[in-house]
Amino acid sequence: MHVPPPRTSFASDNFSGIHPRYLDAIERANDGHVRAYGDDPHTREAVALFRELCDLDVDVLFTFGGTGANVVALGSLLKPGESVVCSANAHINVDETGAPEKILGVKLQDVSTPDGKLRATDLAPLLHALGNVHHVQPGVVSITQATELGTTYTATEISDICSAAHDAGLRVHLDGARIANAVAAAGGRPDDFRAMTFGAGVDAVSFGGTKNAMLHAEAVLLRPGLAPRAEYLRKQFTQLPSKMRFASAQFVEALRDGLWITTATTANERARDLYDALADIHSLGMTPPDVNSVYPLLSPAHKSVLQEWSFFWDWDVNRGQVRWMTSWDTTADDVSRFVEGVRSVVTGA
Amino acid sequence: MHVPPPRTSFASDNFSGIHPRYLDAIERANDGHVRAYGDDPHTREAVALFRELCDLDVDVLFTFGGTGANVVALGSLLKPGESVVCSANAHINVDETGAPEKILGVKLQDVSTPDGKLRATDLAPLLHALGNVHHVQPGVVSITQATELGTTYTATEISDICSAAHDAGLRVHLDGARIANAVAAAGGRPDDFRAMTFGAGVDAVSFGGTKNAMLHAEAVLLRPGLAPRAEYLRKQFTQLPSKMRFASAQFVEALRDGLWITTATTANERARDLYDALADIHSLGMTPPDVNSVYPLLSPAHKSVLQEWSFFWDWDVNRGQVRWMTSWDTTADDVSRFVEGVRSVVTGA
Amino acid sequence: MHVPPPRTSFASDNFSGIHPRYLDAIERANDGHVRAYGDDPHTREAVALFRELCDLDVDVLFTFGGTGANVVALGSLLKPGESVVCSANAHINVDETGAPEKILGVKLQDVSTPDGKLRATDLAPLLHALGNVHHVQPGVVSITQATELGTTYTATEISDICSAAHDAGLRVHLDGARIANAVAAAGGRPDDFRAMTFGAGVDAVSFGGTKNAMLHAEAVLLRPGLAPRAEYLRKQFTQLPSKMRFASAQFVEALRDGLWITTATTANERARDLYDALADIHSLGMTPPDVNSVYPLLSPAHKSVLQEWSFFWDWDVNRGQVRWMTSWDTTADDVSRFVEGVRSVVTGA
Amino acid sequence: MHVPPPRTSFASDNFSGIHPRYLDAIERANDGHVRAYGDDPHTREAVALFRELCDLDVDVLFTFGGTGANVVALGSLLKPGESVVCSANAHINVDETGAPEKILGVKLQDVSTPDGKLRATDLAPLLHALGNVHHVQPGVVSITQATELGTTYTATEISDICSAAHDAGLRVHLDGARIANAVAAAGGRPDDFRAMTFGAGVDAVSFGGTKNAMLHAEAVLLRPGLAPRAEYLRKQFTQLPSKMRFASAQFVEALRDGLWITTATTANERARDLYDALADIHSLGMTPPDVNSVYPLLSPAHKSVLQEWSFFWDWDVNRGQVRWMTSWDTTADDVSRFVEGVRSVVTGA
Repeated sequence: MHVPPPRTSFASDNFSGIHPRYLDAIERANDGHVRAYGDDPHTREAVALFRELCDLDVDVLFTFGGTGANVVALGSLLKPGESVVCSANAHINVDETGAPEKILGVKLQDVSTPDGKLRATDLAPLLHALGNVHHVQPGVVSITQATELGTTYTATEISDICSAAHDAGLRVHLDGARIANAVAAAGGRPDDFRAMTFGAGVDAVSFGGTKNAMLHAEAVLLRPGLAPRAEYLRKQFTQLPSKMRFASAQFVEALRDGLWITTATTANERARDLYDALADIHSLGMTPPDVNSVYPLLSPAHKSVLQEWSFFWDWDVNRGQVRWMTSWDTTADDVSRFVEGVRSVVTGA
Repeated sequence: MHVPPPRTSFASDNFSGIHPRYLDAIERANDGHVRAYGDDPHTREAVALFRELCDLDVDVLFTFGGTGANVVALGSLLKPGESVVCSANAHINVDETGAPEKILGVKLQDVSTPDGKLRATDLAPLLHALGNVHHVQPGVVSITQATELGTTYTATEISDICSAAHDAGLRVHLDGARIANAVAAAGGRPDDFRAMTFGAGVDAVSFGGTKNAMLHAEAVLLRPGLAPRAEYLRKQFTQLPSKMRFASAQFVEALRDGLWITTATTANERARDLYDALADIHSLGMTPPDVNSVYPLLSPAHKSVLQEWSFFWDWDVNRGQVRWMTSWDTTADDVSRFVEGVRSVVTGA
Repeated sequence: MHVPPPRTSFASDNFSGIHPRYLDAIERANDGHVRAYGDDPHTREAVALFRELCDLDVDVLFTFGGTGANVVALGSLLKPGESVVCSANAHINVDETGAPEKILGVKLQDVSTPDGKLRATDLAPLLHALGNVHHVQPGVVSITQATELGTTYTATEISDICSAAHDAGLRVHLDGARIANAVAAAGGRPDDFRAMTFGAGVDAVSFGGTKNAMLHAEAVLLRPGLAPRAEYLRKQFTQLPSKMRFASAQFVEALRDGLWITTATTANERARDLYDALADIHSLGMTPPDVNSVYPLLSPAHKSVLQEWSFFWDWDVNRGQVRWMTSWDTTADDVSRFVEGVRSVVTGA
Repeated sequence: MHVPPPRTSFASDNFSGIHPRYLDAIERANDGHVRAYGDDPHTREAVALFRELCDLDVDVLFTFGGTGANVVALGSLLKPGESVVCSANAHINVDETGAPEKILGVKLQDVSTPDGKLRATDLAPLLHALGNVHHVQPGVVSITQATELGTTYTATEISDICSAAHDAGLRVHLDGARIANAVAAAGGRPDDFRAMTFGAGVDAVSFGGTKNAMLHAEAVLLRPGLAPRAEYLRKQFTQLPSKMRFASAQFVEALRDGLWITTATTANERARDLYDALADIHSLGMTPPDVNSVYPLLSPAHKSVLQEWSFFWDWDVNRGQVRWMTSWDTTADDVSRFVEGVRSVVTGA
């Protein structure tokens, strides 16, 4: 193809690197000896900032990765014999190689949804099993915000799910691998975060950093008093970082002045730019993005030319759907070039 | 209700007791000391009879129960990182309280089917994940014969599934908790059994005895050489009976002259009688049974009157569907009385 | 060898069959249809008899086998991140192929003891780990009564262990695969049972039937209110018998008039007879049995001649130790013949 | 205390930070987008360097942490029903909160050793279980080099263990969280590494970086062809880093010119300095360190004064033993000050 490819890829927000301020934070924290495993001042400060963000004395457990955060969070909420209810598109259901089943021994009960969002009404048909010893017992509802399909829940929708879940004795987990993008889309204020998490009734949050410009930094936030043994699970599930200060220092940098929102806002805006620039090509079948990804349809021939030119992932091979995703470092120029390439291939222009 | 209830229940084939010949077999085997855990002449004879039935030197592992047999069979076939593909209605998916996930740490990938039967074509959409480290790897296809919806696979349908599975490197498990009913429906000869199991390419069979008039006797049959460590799994999964001779002696009695087919045939015929006697009541929405159960629709009011009169299980609460099941000891008189009761309630006759 | 072997084996109490009264109980229970999975009158009666025996409204869960009972009991008592503390000789540690580790994902912390008995003082060195996230947390102490070495705990010893455990926040499980033999040795009254179990502070008991003349009947007894989710675990761990009435009916027969003590007393007395008859052969190194087994030392040559003549199990191959065990149906004549054979081989007499 | 504490702690090598050259490597790798999960040039280069180091085309899997590396390595080597044999002091046995048991469902069979080192002769007593379905099957021998007690195996000792293991059908894992210190102690050449790992017959190595000046970088090295499904396990066990280039770039920096040996040598030398300076205080009961730690005995009073002054960990509370450990950044001045403090407290000088 004659169009030069964009400098950054539209494949995934984990193809991007580390924001310079997070790298600086790591360097500043690299000052002599501190106690390992989180008994250090950086971690104490990061915990305090998370509690301020949540306006709640949440338990905060930093982990290496997002799958690890999800497994620790779910394991902390589950009782014996219980299942996790989630969307069929959920990362825990399709992108973790069965980690929850393997590590937790838990059944996932997945619900098909057109937009990746569970509804409160999705729970009812599963609740007939409660009390019947032959059936797994719905125990935790896990939702993703923003979802794997680039959509977002409103605070009210999450609140409705939490109410339905709590009324039936279940707990709610929010996989926030891209929570920053969802908060940015909702206004970007701490109140927007609170309204869609603990304020709505969520019991545990996987708070993502890695897809939002950090170096391997994730956090599990737990409603106070709910999971006193979560610390043991984190260690047992191989997710307790020894040199924790380096994750904590990044979260301090992220939370102190809203850098986590700034980076997510950029990614969201670039995805919107991409959508706007290609919305006239109806064959792509795109819907406007809530956050930082769009899910176009491509013919096999177009797809293969474009993937070779500037790699991106298939999304649903059976439907010919792919994913284009922006990141904290995607530039306007990257979007222009990518649009030009797509247009050239798809429309022959 | 004025009609007297039937002597036997139409709730489940595990509400029935032990066939007198199996009880006799237990008594005859109760003769002094023999080695425990299967190193006894009864077990050797039962194994030989199973190999004759299969026309193949299968590995035979007797277990206490059906869920245990399934877990041992699946665990014997699975490799690290693999999943089990099954129908959404599968017993392993809905009636085992998540035992496969808990004990095997395995993900079940369930497929919705109208009749409880998987098709070879159901596999293709899942096979794109093969080789992708982020997704669980389809490893074993598990089908149930007869299915949980009272339908049966033809030998050709099973053969097609096995071919599709083997072509992609997967193995096939057949949950035969009611294999006797399926074989009886297909003609009842050893050849009918072989054609729908090892002859079709099935790699492991859970061969049920308990629902077919025995006292806690199930067997796992494994294609020779396929799972040399299955014995360790049986013990580790708590399914190695110490006084195994008493299960084995029943299987000897069952297989020697076809008693297992005789009992299943009776159950099947009674279900057909039940269907024939009620087929004119269209509101029940029944389809003719392949084996020993029908799945009528009942209004809540009718259901509750009838369940109080002669208990049976709900099947799909969300649809108002129930299950009526016959057993080896269901009599023509039982069917007549049950029909009279149903007719009286549903039609007011 | 010129001496004819005994009619019953001295290998294990699970080489023996079913007591005629238990077989009768099974036959009487085999009367038409009853609800499956324990919702039947036999089970209700057995539960009531267990509560009377315990003088406590214990939760009672019947299981297929002893390993299954242990796994259900331990799983019901454990919290996340906890371990099980047991003797190095414990059945759960050496004779269950790692079932607790596999099914519960739990670490066993085994303590070497000369006689198979834990002491309250064995706990202290392990308790330093409490609260330290890097170490597994001692959670449940599991003792066996009678032990795998044929010794028994006094009620006071058990009470001391329970106090030490409870003071540190741990719970206590008693593996009573041979609890009947221990109760028989202690006097055989219900009070003797209570004093060594719930009266001493034990939280969960695996109550064995199979080694004591029954057909695959075991029970888990749980201190009231302690493990509300145990039922789900039993099903999930493949240990919920569908035709439960046949296990329950045996326990009714056992508990109603003390048959379980009668059979155990016989086994104990035969072991004592065996010991008395051979105590003069010092090379055997036997100690007087508390219950139904002795653990003599044999030279390899003597051992192999005797095992071929009348099979018994090696106990500790590294020390040349074997196990001779009596059963409910061992007769005085069996003992005489076995003694004669042993004496002939070992002393050349 | 009047003596000022050392600048660096003697608590653990994971209290130290990141070597400046590793931080530089991270910065250089932070250049735009690269594919995630290891499909990047840094990872390819690191893998090539590991293969050169091993002189073997090992499979290389980078992981977040050391417990994760061990679990992935062991899981890759184990077959169904098998156990792991290790020293009672092994990190996997005492410092991972039961992670192997929880995630792998595997039993650890731990052997008491005076110096943390297994011997080939320790295996024999466990091998009697092979083929006996009631006992867990020894499957993998796991040794630690350098050991948790600061000792090291010679290449011959490791070779002997591997031969004994392989002769019996077992595989061998080497936990090399501090492999660099052991190689440095043996001479520091690639040949020294090879001789104690794959050259000796080891099948899998956990190669540690984090305790040796890196930021969360560990690697699993697997004998070629031995564990084709290890990649799936790594993901399933939550140990697949998305931004893998940042771990890989550090290993490139480490392996290119021997920086990993340089840093380990420093740590080793400081520990030897510490030992030499205190060897005259016999009450400490120290033995000369092979690598970077000593294990002195302290009275409770002395211990508490010293720990408050400059924190270090208890090792064996029941014996009054503590651990002093040096790191890549421990200076001669740090040692002098620490020695002065210890001497002042212990001898009153």
